[in-house]
Amino acid sequence: MKQEDKAPSGPGVGLVSSQDFHFGDSPEDVLHLDCGKTLRGVNIRYETYGTLNVDKSNAILVEHALTGDAHLAGYHSETDKKSGWWDPMVGPGRPFDTNKYFIICSNILGGCSGSTGPSSINPDTGKPYRMNFPVITIADMVRAQKRLIDHLGIKKLLTVVGGSMGGMLAVQWPILYPDAVRSVTPIATAIQITAQSIAFNWVGREAIMADPGWNHGNYTEQPQKGLAIARMLAHITYLSDESMSNKFGRELQSAEDYSFNFNMDFRVESYLNYQGSRFVERFDANSYLYITRAIDYFDVSDGTGGDYAKAFRDVKCPFLIVSFSSDWLFPEYQSRSLARILLENGNDVTLCNIKSGYGHDAFLLEYETLGRLITGFLINISQEVSS
Amino acid sequence: MKQEDKAPSGPGVGLVSSQDFHFGDSPEDVLHLDCGKTLRGVNIRYETYGTLNVDKSNAILVEHALTGDAHLAGYHSETDKKSGWWDPMVGPGRPFDTNKYFIICSNILGGCSGSTGPSSINPDTGKPYRMNFPVITIADMVRAQKRLIDHLGIKKLLTVVGGSMGGMLAVQWPILYPDAVRSVTPIATAIQITAQSIAFNWVGREAIMADPGWNHGNYTEQPQKGLAIARMLAHITYLSDESMSNKFGRELQSAEDYSFNFNMDFRVESYLNYQGSRFVERFDANSYLYITRAIDYFDVSDGTGGDYAKAFRDVKCPFLIVSFSSDWLFPEYQSRSLARILLENGNDVTLCNIKSGYGHDAFLLEYETLGRLITGFLINISQEVSS
Repeated sequence: MKQEDKAPSGPGVGLVSSQDFHFGDSPEDVLHLDCGKTLRGVNIRYETYGTLNVDKSNAILVEHALTGDAHLAGYHSETDKKSGWWDPMVGPGRPFDTNKYFIICSNILGGCSGSTGPSSINPDTGKPYRMNFPVITIADMVRAQKRLIDHLGIKKLLTVVGGSMGGMLAVQWPILYPDAVRSVTPIATAIQITAQSIAFNWVGREAIMADPGWNHGNYTEQPQKGLAIARMLAHITYLSDESMSNKFGRELQSAEDYSFNFNMDFRVESYLNYQGSRFVERFDANSYLYITRAIDYFDVSDGTGGDYAKAFRDVKCPFLIVSFSSDWLFPEYQSRSLARILLENGNDVTLCNIKSGYGHDAFLLEYETLGRLITGFLINISQEVSS
Repeated sequence: MKQEDKAPSGPGVGLVSSQDFHFGDSPEDVLHLDCGKTLRGVNIRYETYGTLNVDKSNAILVEHALTGDAHLAGYHSETDKKSGWWDPMVGPGRPFDTNKYFIICSNILGGCSGSTGPSSINPDTGKPYRMNFPVITIADMVRAQKRLIDHLGIKKLLTVVGGSMGGMLAVQWPILYPDAVRSVTPIATAIQITAQSIAFNWVGREAIMADPGWNHGNYTEQPQKGLAIARMLAHITYLSDESMSNKFGRELQSAEDYSFNFNMDFRVESYLNYQGSRFVERFDANSYLYITRAIDYFDVSDGTGGDYAKAFRDVKCPFLIVSFSSDWLFPEYQSRSLARILLENGNDVTLCNIKSGYGHDAFLLEYETLGRLITGFLINISQEVSS
């Protein structure tokens, strides 16, 4: 994660550690899913930063993107070289100011970084779920998070914020639990993805499932090639034509001329290859299948006959909606469309399209502009709470 | 190939048949390639439409795109259901008017539709070349075509025209043979592809080579899954966000609700799947590797130290350059950039960006607008010839 833009200010959160919240062991406590199935013995891995105030009104839930995790900020050990995925945004004096707010980030249901997902042990069999894991939805992920928030004793979140898929969870929150959020901050996201995005997800999953190493999900080692191909493809969609041209252009890898073979000639090929390999080391292939499917299925108008007004009927809180000009995976028009629906619904809406060449990844890079927007929005929301 | 736009006018060319031109059997006649190797015993499959006039001044060379072939127009038999790939553009009274012009289309070197390529028999071994086929370039393809044009006794082509990769060949022609073309008509193309396109090609090739069925190129049956994945991915880049939204949106395939599994739920998934399967039936996987590599390598400034003015120094003919507004694989700015270079070079340039929602595929769909532009351009060029 490059920090292209300088972090707003102040030191980070330092050393942090993850916690686990376990629920659903008794029949009354199981998690009911959209597909009609239930999950029992669910674990949710999470991290918190800052201190929950006495009236529990300063809690912010940060949602990670497709392949993110609960490690939002700080370091896990003194020798840890990699900070959490949105580190410049979290800490004393930073937009998610740990002097003011209690920040929570949890790994989503279906993930592979501590929360229950396809690689977890199925309590019914004592073996990993793999492809027996039920197909989950964004709403299911939010339902699991609600259990965590309840467990922490928080009645109302100051905001739910997230980029990309994280923004989908953020939007889903007030639809499921209108009384549990004071505001929503969807970033670089949409209330349903485009046919083009469904298509890219399809090709990625086909690449994973075409790898004989995938073995219908029953691999002992990751389906390396298929998963790398899925990641490389997705990675292209996270960047922009402009950022790829600026970063790589047609630069050759090392040779002075073309190799006249099919190895890596161009720097961009070697970069993608590296991204693919790294991903295989850290992300479970089956989780990738389940989470992209949840993204495909996400449509807040489901169950309303495509009626968005109806979907947001009970949602009365203010929204800060942010898009990025060169994001072609979640184009600006999708944020504008959400804003329009909410305005018609009577919500307070702040809509900002940040000019950036970084494409979809801008939400992980444009810290300064994004930070200022979020800082201001949170101050406003907090004042409403205390007044 | 959908004919979205009505064909300009007149009947088509009717029944046509392919011909073969063979060269390079003697050591002096072999084809010298950019990679330093040579090819002997080269076949070029081609078709012609219309009649070559006495002074041989009415010949037009049409270049096909990546997976195209020599079958530009008409039908191969009475029962043939599928016309040539640019049929509405070719025939009496059509833009490439067979009453006026002699139109040639040849399958490119490296292809798999009759011209010598990786699936052809290597005369040195008596076995298919497969991955022993030399890595070829767009210039090599043009060099092979020049032999055909010489064979047909044509000294100067009225125009060389093509879309996508075909446009690259068109641009390459006057650079290699400035005296052999009266005009050039590059459509939806570029004088070098972007880092993003190199990246997409890379992922496609990786998918093919990751398929165990590919077997280092030594397959007896096509690497079905890998090739289908490459095609599905490429197919997304040929459409546009807009055209995919209009054509598929989030429509489900047949079920009333989500299937909650990983089969095809959305219509766009089933469409892609169909495109992938069909492609495997008609296009050789190794050819796909070689041709995409040639596209990656294409850069008219190669050998000039990146100096485009130098590359076009000897090119004095007029150009008709056409781009399409929603084409994100070969964005309009690439056509504009070519036009600027040519204007500075002193060439007559007609540049037109056609407003279309069809994305890159627009060059195969926007017959009416494209047809009018080409008709006018050819009349002008022809008048220059006769005056």
